[in-house]
Amino acid sequence: MKRTSALLADGREIIYFDDTDDAVRELNDPRDLPAALTASEIRHDVLLDEWVAVASHRQTRTHLPPTDQCPLCPSRSGHHTEIPSPDYDVVVFENRFPSFAENVPDVEPWLDAAHVMERRPGRGRCEVVCFTSDHDSSFAALTPDRVRTVMEAWVDRTVELSRIDAVEQVFIFENQGPEIGVTLTHPHGQVYAYPFVTPTTSQMLAAVRRHHDRTGHNLFEQLLASELADGSRVVTENEHWVAFVPGSARWPFEVHLYPRDRVADLPALGDTERDAFGPIYLSVLRAFDRLFGVPMPYISAWHQAPVRSDRELAALHLRLFSIRRDKDKLKYLAGSESGMGAFVNDVPPEQAAASLRDALQQ
Amino acid sequence: MKRTSALLADGREIIYFDDTDDAVRELNDPRDLPAALTASEIRHDVLLDEWVAVASHRQTRTHLPPTDQCPLCPSRSGHHTEIPSPDYDVVVFENRFPSFAENVPDVEPWLDAAHVMERRPGRGRCEVVCFTSDHDSSFAALTPDRVRTVMEAWVDRTVELSRIDAVEQVFIFENQGPEIGVTLTHPHGQVYAYPFVTPTTSQMLAAVRRHHDRTGHNLFEQLLASELADGSRVVTENEHWVAFVPGSARWPFEVHLYPRDRVADLPALGDTERDAFGPIYLSVLRAFDRLFGVPMPYISAWHQAPVRSDRELAALHLRLFSIRRDKDKLKYLAGSESGMGAFVNDVPPEQAAASLRDALQQ
Repeated sequence: MKRTSALLADGREIIYFDDTDDAVRELNDPRDLPAALTASEIRHDVLLDEWVAVASHRQTRTHLPPTDQCPLCPSRSGHHTEIPSPDYDVVVFENRFPSFAENVPDVEPWLDAAHVMERRPGRGRCEVVCFTSDHDSSFAALTPDRVRTVMEAWVDRTVELSRIDAVEQVFIFENQGPEIGVTLTHPHGQVYAYPFVTPTTSQMLAAVRRHHDRTGHNLFEQLLASELADGSRVVTENEHWVAFVPGSARWPFEVHLYPRDRVADLPALGDTERDAFGPIYLSVLRAFDRLFGVPMPYISAWHQAPVRSDRELAALHLRLFSIRRDKDKLKYLAGSESGMGAFVNDVPPEQAAASLRDALQQ
Repeated sequence: MKRTSALLADGREIIYFDDTDDAVRELNDPRDLPAALTASEIRHDVLLDEWVAVASHRQTRTHLPPTDQCPLCPSRSGHHTEIPSPDYDVVVFENRFPSFAENVPDVEPWLDAAHVMERRPGRGRCEVVCFTSDHDSSFAALTPDRVRTVMEAWVDRTVELSRIDAVEQVFIFENQGPEIGVTLTHPHGQVYAYPFVTPTTSQMLAAVRRHHDRTGHNLFEQLLASELADGSRVVTENEHWVAFVPGSARWPFEVHLYPRDRVADLPALGDTERDAFGPIYLSVLRAFDRLFGVPMPYISAWHQAPVRSDRELAALHLRLFSIRRDKDKLKYLAGSESGMGAFVNDVPPEQAAASLRDALQQ
């Protein structure tokens, strides 16, 4: 694996992660790009005790461009993209329309009558991770070797972004499919380095802490042991990883992938665990696509420990879930889910797991 | 207002709420309906300390039927719908495909190895509220008098459903628009009577309790006072109600309606407040539709106190929000929102409020 970094024309960082050590990349970006204007702030929703980002400059972001104008393809003569090089294996660069950035301006403190409202600059960083230079491919079509390179890029970004003062959590994810609102079809994921611990992670670690205080046990470890002992929702496993549908799945098809040995984050994975991830994840992704014979829209989300807090409680795991509940039906987040946070799942987790095990055999 | 109740052919309750006392309704349901089979359970997501409902029978529910087969239109010769009467003003009936029901069977307790997983029957009730017999109308097109009748139906259902032993919270809401996943276009809302306090309400009341313990003040009251003092996000107000975009809005267009005097729930509203709600809510809904010259998909969600807990802390309010962020663009809940609960809003709340004030003047 070879790592090469450079700067784009407007000063954003770009980093090539290549499968082999002999790759040579074109590092000069010949475009005449204006400096990106990022006006991001975070506001405290005091009623829910959660931070919300307001990023108005994103309204003008690129929206479903035609293939020949894809900004994630390699550059070729006459078409300069976000990636100056004529080819790449895996490449990461700072998002031009980020929700968070390191250089956002200060905001006026919010002096409301009762001093209950609070706002801050949206300092952090957002990056794009391209998995392949092949515009028409997908993560599910990658080779295990390429997934291994992607894993190294994820580890690198977790380490590097954790070093930024403002950053409290590094979130690595992929949105796949127009049904999820994906605006660029070129195979890519994203990294969000947040200036706060995210609401879901905060809530989860609070429950894990309460359980630990009460019982002395780690809830993640107990849940994994329970799922393995029960077995009815286990989809597949290998020497280092277990994939199961959680008993309380919110989404019609939802798979959690845990390493057998609990670690805080991706950098804490050993080489054998990094090697073993690609084969099991690819088999689950391919089973997803076989479920209904049409590509599954999905969100794939790496849960990692926060940068500074509760690291001893956390458990690295991946949550993969789809909003497709049938061949021609999607799960919408309507009143109960979006209004009250109360999910209603029409597909029993045991049935989802059985369907996925069948699809794995096909 | 006249209230008339009856039973449908399969034993479900139906209740007519008529604008005038002289309405006469056909109460006999001539259909030969099999008893509804409801297999709902709730499962504890111990990692987030939230309940999730699993309701497998809902997969077969009615999906976008043609207008001449609308189950929410009044019955006519040769077409028997869910409403036996040839006309109605407002009518409420138990959902045939409920997420929760009173008669769901017991479930086997879940004996996992570590005793961390828990499941229970999904006992509660789900109802449909039809706002008008006119299939092609909408809530925004109702008269204030009709909204007053709808309000009485909401109050009645809150009181009645709170009396069911299993019910911990009554949630009244409307999903509007195919973009939200609405499967029946006839103007209607829903009532969910949950067997748990919903995650959003639990989280909110926990924050309000912490604030009260620390300061002695009610956070809802302080927030409303702050929004009124600041004024930049107030959309409209009348003698009894205030409509504003919250400073930490999650959705591109989001309006919260609070009564000026804090009450726990709809039944606690006085007559003058009930009278004053229709005019202000209708003006906001109509402003929503004028924003982009196309009907706004929306979720309208009444936040009420739980049935048995934290009633002294709670504040009745309505949250109206849309996923439309531009004429041809929707807000999707992708990785950051669905994976980590971290919302990124592209429309500054102050700008949304200004746009809504403009639309109110048109």
